[in-house]
Formats: sequence, structure tokens, C-alpha cells
Amino acid sequence: MDHASAQTAKKQETFPSITGRFACQVQWGDCDPAGIIFYPTYFRWMDAATWAFMDSVGFSAKRMRAEHLAMPLVSADCQFIAPALQADRCEVRSRIARFGGASFAVAHEIVREDGVTLAKGGETRVWGRFANGPGTPMKGEKIPDEVKALFRAK
Amino acid sequence: MDHASAQTAKKQETFPSITGRFACQVQWGDCDPAGIIFYPTYFRWMDAATWAFMDSVGFSAKRMRAEHLAMPLVSADCQFIAPALQADRCEVRSRIARFGGASFAVAHEIVREDGVTLAKGGETRVWGRFANGPGTPMKGEKIPDEVKALFRAK
Amino acid sequence: MDHASAQTAKKQETFPSITGRFACQVQWGDCDPAGIIFYPTYFRWMDAATWAFMDSVGFSAKRMRAEHLAMPLVSADCQFIAPALQADRCEVRSRIARFGGASFAVAHEIVREDGVTLAKGGETRVWGRFANGPGTPMKGEKIPDEVKALFRAK
Amino acid sequence: MDHASAQTAKKQETFPSITGRFACQVQWGDCDPAGIIFYPTYFRWMDAATWAFMDSVGFSAKRMRAEHLAMPLVSADCQFIAPALQADRCEVRSRIARFGGASFAVAHEIVREDGVTLAKGGETRVWGRFANGPGTPMKGEKIPDEVKALFRAK
Repeated sequence: MDHASAQTAKKQETFPSITGRFACQVQWGDCDPAGIIFYPTYFRWMDAATWAFMDSVGFSAKRMRAEHLAMPLVSADCQFIAPALQADRCEVRSRIARFGGASFAVAHEIVREDGVTLAKGGETRVWGRFANGPGTPMKGEKIPDEVKALFRAK
Repeated sequence: MDHASAQTAKKQETFPSITGRFACQVQWGDCDPAGIIFYPTYFRWMDAATWAFMDSVGFSAKRMRAEHLAMPLVSADCQFIAPALQADRCEVRSRIARFGGASFAVAHEIVREDGVTLAKGGETRVWGRFANGPGTPMKGEKIPDEVKALFRAK
Repeated sequence: MDHASAQTAKKQETFPSITGRFACQVQWGDCDPAGIIFYPTYFRWMDAATWAFMDSVGFSAKRMRAEHLAMPLVSADCQFIAPALQADRCEVRSRIARFGGASFAVAHEIVREDGVTLAKGGETRVWGRFANGPGTPMKGEKIPDEVKALFRAK
Repeated sequence: MDHASAQTAKKQETFPSITGRFACQVQWGDCDPAGIIFYPTYFRWMDAATWAFMDSVGFSAKRMRAEHLAMPLVSADCQFIAPALQADRCEVRSRIARFGGASFAVAHEIVREDGVTLAKGGETRVWGRFANGPGTPMKGEKIPDEVKALFRAK
């Protein structure tokens, strides 16, 4: 994402969101021969952070499964600001950047234990439901106002 | 990446690039409980495709190692257009979207065997060199004109 | 697997199996800061090789899904013989080591392009079926003689 | 690993080891279309658990890097006892099963939050040192008695 679109993204964060927090650590196998984190690892973390964020407001993985809910991706992006090394402890801080009708955008910031921001990313997802569980057709659904309210900062 | 920035990206593809081709296949372990590809897999593919693209113009992994060359990421993004299933055979088509002084942008298109575009992504990378091999400090370098020429379509 | 159990495994290879072949290549992101393959990569390859082996005798991923077939793991092991580097092209050679009633063992050999064996591994799996597709209960089933025959060397 | 070799492994656990504890959680992307953990994930965890175990006795990743220490794998195995689902919180419990001259075996047990053992695995590794950091030749070394003592239960 270039500077212009980063500005755009910033402006789009109009939803007054709570912040989810997901703890993670860079493992040996998450790093590449340059000795730093292999970048798809950040996307694995962002995905896990979004699931943890949902869980924090009452939508656990178990409930998502039981209610056939899904949140497939539309797009994802990440800026890599500082390199991460094996054993670095980090936190992914997630906010709802925007709620659309059937889609929503999550902004993630990956912050190292010492407060340094390593990366900033975003995911745009659809709120959807499987007709009859995983593997069956999935359709986007209007995000209920009750769900949106769960993410609103008091 | 939103529509505006996608337009911006499109406009930035001013370099007349050759196209690299990287074959891949969706494996069981690349898919998630929804039965479709887990999205960080696309970024793993894009990274591998960029290395293959470099190899195709004479910069093999072996040469990169020997010359202490590196190409760390500045940013990466992907739009997910159609879902991929286990066993789908795909090709990542890569072009140089833009050459800067010490950085370059690669545009990737992931196309399924039947011609359907599954995803479109991009990576911005720095062209750099380790002081003394992996693990030692890395500095960006001006991309030599000879390197740029290797990617120019005839 | 120690020497004694390796001997045991060897002796168990009494089924006259055809050999499946799965091509793969070590990617940048498959390697760790030591500059060699991160060992779980071999298990990812072995899993993919088993699916490709099944496909080669008529049990494609699509058919497996349609018939609710599954092949969950009982155990897996691997001996690492020589290190693999980024860009190494390899082949996983797979054979049925043993057919039990509802289980089967696959022996894998990972061979580099130049003929050097990098690793030898094995998987023991159950042949099973989901009651009603993924996510529903799975039960082991007697492996049909017709299935066993597909893997028998002529 | 079959029953016989599991027995053998058990008998080999003659070193009176302390127990390392590594916390982990099954993520969406760690699961496959069957809705359960993709088995190479256990090996990723076992590797991370061994690094954490080393860290717990004073050999942090940073120290390992600084002293050019390495612990490449000879073999790895795992028995899968009960399936793990997304969001399951687990602990990898690691012990030194055996110290050889220049090699050592780590026994891992993966236990779910509710006390159920999901998997039991093992790794055999060499204790070694890079001539001059990652990427340079690595040689096995006699494991110092002082290192062995760090893992001995009081």
C-alpha cells in the first residue's frame, strides 16, 4: 500500500472501535534464511487476531461453527516497518476500521514488546453464512446492528 | 486494497515487463475448515514466484546467496477474487510493475488452470545487500540499470 | 525413529506397491535461519504426496470430497539424512508399506534432483468416512480389496 | 511409530529431566478441510517447544545466535491420539529423553487445556556449531556436562 492509499485507509477508520489484542511470538520456523520473519507469517497472525477479536465479543470459533458463520476475505495488505527476529514477543492490536453492509474492514497493528510497531495491515472481509456447514455454498449477509454494536467503544 | 488504490497501482504499471510464470497447486494443508485456500498461502506463492522470476533472468537463489543479495519487503497486498480448492493447479504470473531507485514493485496474478483469475496481488521490495551474509546488516542499493534491463520486454 | 524401529519398518514393507511420485521444490519461506529446510516442510510434502498418490489411482481430492472419504493420521515419522537448500528440486517417492484392516502405512523417500536421498519418512493412516461431510463424525472402514489392488505392482 | 518402537522410546527415557512447558493454541489456518489440526502443525509446535525449553535453561535464541549454536534434526516422530479443533488451547510438555555424546532426544507430549493428551512425539537432534554463523558449515560437538546438568531434575 503506497502512501496515498495509506492516507485513504486512515481516513476510512471512522468506526469508533474497541481494540482486540492477540499475543504472539516469532518462532524459528517463522523466520527465513535472512534470519528475520518470513512475511506471510504476519498474515497468519492477522487472521488469528481477527478470530480472537470475534471471540472477545462473544463469537467464539465454536459458535461460528455451530451457526455456520464465515468471514471470507476480500483483500488483505500489510506494510512491513521493522524486521522481527526469532523469539520477539508481539501483540496484534485489531480494530474495526469500517463496517459496510455485508463487509467489514479490520485494521491491525503488530507491536513488539518494547513498543516498536513492526507492521501495519488490513483485512477486508465479508460476513457470511454457509447454507449447511463448511463445504456447502456460502452467502454474504447483512451485518446485524447488534453485531456492530459489540465492537463499538463505550 | 480499495478501488482507488487499485486504480493507482494500475497506473503505476509503466514498466514494460516480461512475465514470469510459477506453477503451483493447492494442497490439503493449504486449505482451511471452510474447504478453501487459507489466504496467507497466496502470499507464500507470491514470494516463491518472485524468487522464480529473479531466477529466470539469471539471479538464482544460489547466486543471490553468493553475492549477499537480498530483497526484503516494504509492503504486500492481495485481492481475493475467486476461491481455490484442494488440487487446483494454478500459475502465478509476475511482472515488474515499477522500478524505483532502490526499490521495485512486483504485480502478481494467480490464474487457475481453466483461465480463471483467483487473486491479484503486489509486493514492494528493496534491492539490498547484506554486509557479510545473512544475519549481518543489510543496506538498500541502487538497482543497476543492467538488472532493470533483464526484465524489459523486447 | 531409532535404528531398531527403522529395521522394523523396513521389514513391514511386505506389500508389493507401485511408486507414487510427487515433485516439489524448496522455497525461501520453507527454510529457516540456518539456511536449510525447516523440518515440518517434509511432513507437508509427505501429506501432499499421499494425496497425489491417491489421485494417481483414481481417488482425486474431488472424489474423496464427494464420497466423504478421509484418511486421518495415526502417526508420522521422518529421518533427516542430508540438508536441503532453497531452490532444490525434489521428488517424494511413495509406496504402500503395509495394508491393515482399516489402516495403511505409506513409506516416503525424498530424493533430490541429483539422486541424493534427503529424508525417509512414514505415515500411518486410517481409511475412513465422514457421516455427512467434513465436520461430522468420521469412522474408520475396512479398506476394500479393490482399493488395495489399485496399489499393487504388476 | 508402532507399539514396539513406542515401548523402546519409553525405555530410553532414562535421563531424569525437568519438564519444559510451551503454550499454544490451534488457529483457523492450522486446520484442514476436515476441520481438525493439519498434522505438520504438531511438528511446528514441537520445534518451537524445544527452542522454548532451551531458553528456559539459559540458552535463548539470542544467545544461540551469538554463540553460533545449532541443533539440527536427526529424526522426528509423532503419534496422533485425539483430534484438535480450532481455538483449542494446548501445552507442549518437553523432557530430555536421552543425552548421547553429540546428540539428544526430546520427548514431547501435547496436552489440551482439559488434560487430554492429543499427541506424543519425539525429536532427535545434534548439538552443533556453525563455523561462522548461519550458512557456514556446521559441526556436531560433544554436549558439555554443564549443559546436561541444566536439564537434570533436582
